Amino acid sequence: MLRDWLGVAVAEARAGLAEGGVPIGAALIGADGEVLGRGHNRRVQDGDPSLHAETSAFRAAGRQRSYRGTTMVTTLSPCWYCSGLVRQFGISRVLIGEATTFSGGHDWLADHGVEVIILDDRACVSLMERFIAEHPALWREDIGDDEQP
Amino acid sequence: MLRDWLGVAVAEARAGLAEGGVPIGAALIGADGEVLGRGHNRRVQDGDPSLHAETSAFRAAGRQRSYRGTTMVTTLSPCWYCSGLVRQFGISRVLIGEATTFSGGHDWLADHGVEVIILDDRACVSLMERFIAEHPALWREDIGDDEQP
Repeated sequence: MLRDWLGVAVAEARAGLAEGGVPIGAALIGADGEVLGRGHNRRVQDGDPSLHAETSAFRAAGRQRSYRGTTMVTTLSPCWYCSGLVRQFGISRVLIGEATTFSGGHDWLADHGVEVIILDDRACVSLMERFIAEHPALWREDIGDDEQP
Repeated sequence: MLRDWLGVAVAEARAGLAEGGVPIGAALIGADGEVLGRGHNRRVQDGDPSLHAETSAFRAAGRQRSYRGTTMVTTLSPCWYCSGLVRQFGISRVLIGEATTFSGGHDWLADHGVEVIILDDRACVSLMERFIAEHPALWREDIGDDEQP
């Protein structure tokens, strides 16, 4: 089941890559296992820095009265922005493809009662390793790293 | 100067209120004092839960190479979602109208090197007090509070 959910996020990441974007994908899964929303990073495609993969999936799910029992599945460890989203809206669980190429706020979320599962998925690592090597400036921009390399 | 910046955010909040929305406004101010982007909460207007005031302003500012020296001005203490945005992108300062009716992650931001200024503005407090009294369920939805009142 968890691998199926990650598969939705990976498909989103690959769609983003094919569009020339940052290859990170996510989905918000309901308490009953249905996909409430799915999406990918849209910085390049829409010129929109506010749409990380997780916020895209959250947006696609529309207004919800409660996020209790939901799971945010994402190909990459959520940055502080996306970790804050999870905490504020009470999303119960975060399922992460990998936290090797980037590590955001997942430990903080675990400290605040969110169930965190890291799958350490090799395909997710490869996707980001290649993207970071080929587009280092774009990657730094996406995580707000303005240091010169 | 700070009161002028807050005025931009308050104008956004009032525009949101006039549209029937959650009356919280924000603006991202550049290092030179120019308004890079401004916006307000759009949950009701667009059916979009991802657009809090701060994320609307951040989105409106478009892609930026660096947020060093920028100020996020907001009528209300930023929730965890919006606080995470500030931390991840290295926004230097947060100027807050009030933190009385709601308190989010501003202390956490201060602990992580963000300059935090709270103006304790009476008009901002009144705006939120009235909104929360008139639309308690909408307000709880906007901050992910799914407890029954």
